[in-house]
Amino acid sequence: MANLSPGPLNLPPKRPDVRDALLQAASELIIERDTLEVALTDVAQRASVNSALIQYYFGNKDGFLLALLERDIGDAVRRMRILLASDGSALDKLTTHLSGLARAYHRVPYLNRLLRLISNAAEEEVFGELVRRLVDPMCSFYREVIAQGVAAGEFRQVDPVFLYFTVVGACDQLFSNRRLFNQLAAGGRTTDAALREFTDYLVKLVFDGIKMRA
Amino acid sequence: MANLSPGPLNLPPKRPDVRDALLQAASELIIERDTLEVALTDVAQRASVNSALIQYYFGNKDGFLLALLERDIGDAVRRMRILLASDGSALDKLTTHLSGLARAYHRVPYLNRLLRLISNAAEEEVFGELVRRLVDPMCSFYREVIAQGVAAGEFRQVDPVFLYFTVVGACDQLFSNRRLFNQLAAGGRTTDAALREFTDYLVKLVFDGIKMRA
Repeated sequence: MANLSPGPLNLPPKRPDVRDALLQAASELIIERDTLEVALTDVAQRASVNSALIQYYFGNKDGFLLALLERDIGDAVRRMRILLASDGSALDKLTTHLSGLARAYHRVPYLNRLLRLISNAAEEEVFGELVRRLVDPMCSFYREVIAQGVAAGEFRQVDPVFLYFTVVGACDQLFSNRRLFNQLAAGGRTTDAALREFTDYLVKLVFDGIKMRA
Repeated sequence: MANLSPGPLNLPPKRPDVRDALLQAASELIIERDTLEVALTDVAQRASVNSALIQYYFGNKDGFLLALLERDIGDAVRRMRILLASDGSALDKLTTHLSGLARAYHRVPYLNRLLRLISNAAEEEVFGELVRRLVDPMCSFYREVIAQGVAAGEFRQVDPVFLYFTVVGACDQLFSNRRLFNQLAAGGRTTDAALREFTDYLVKLVFDGIKMRA
């Protein structure tokens, strides 16, 4: 009889490609079905791996969702840090950031729903991790860019959190409801054209909205 | 033996108070639990009526959700029509509207999630009804107010649908994620104070953002 007594587990080493394949599969399924309600068994099947591996790689569903959000906006958050430290004016930084944000929502329209799902449902520890790793850096970006613009006499003082909510809300609203978007915003345009026009609109609205007047 | 042969149903006359009680119960449960995933049996139980009455009054779940949205924003849509026909300047109309919108989301934070749920999942007929009754009037409001402001030399031309997405997105973003709101936006303030400050911020951002410059 095989020895099934408890002892050190002899699991295979964790492989980054399996982890990535699971996250990619989840992302694709969420976009295709336009809902976050995707079964983990479907994710595993799409990635052609055993669904037990989700627990092995991510601990539980909270961990999996946080890893997906990290994958989807982690790069953007790192780019914001680099942008913040760069030489440009506050206006340049905000333009670069807003174009990137609109493109990110166009590519990954579920970003905000995922953020909301985790921050409403996650345990205290996961929520804290989410805020520390992904939300605080974004709010810091707004705070510091506004401070730079105010110091240079370019911007008036606005609440960085309110500004964050406005631009994220606008991008989310535009890209997360495909059926209404196609009906209202795309009109005769391609969605790419609508995206470009929306980005120009948002950048101009925000700039004119916070610009310091003589 | 009682006669159970098919024949005209002898149902009680529909009573508006039962209908209202069901909608009110759904609204309360959605806000309390901060999710749209509320079972219709829970709604019926809260309203102290038999859950079969939901089908009797609303046909099906789509019909019930559309009726809830109609109840929650129907009045606001009617007020927008009256406001549009009133004598004020475009600036006055937009101010009145934006304050009302922020208050509406503060009171009914699930508005946009409900709109999105219906417009993503509803059958073609219900979706068409939703757009005709609730979305088109809002977009018309933005279109006509912007046209009035442009004609008066007060506003520059902006896309009314983009503006609609921006303000609805900002309000939704601020009020629909309680945990993040409390962490980021409320800070030391009461939520009422945060609401007032947010309204002032949004009105000023939009006005400065679309105001015509010399």
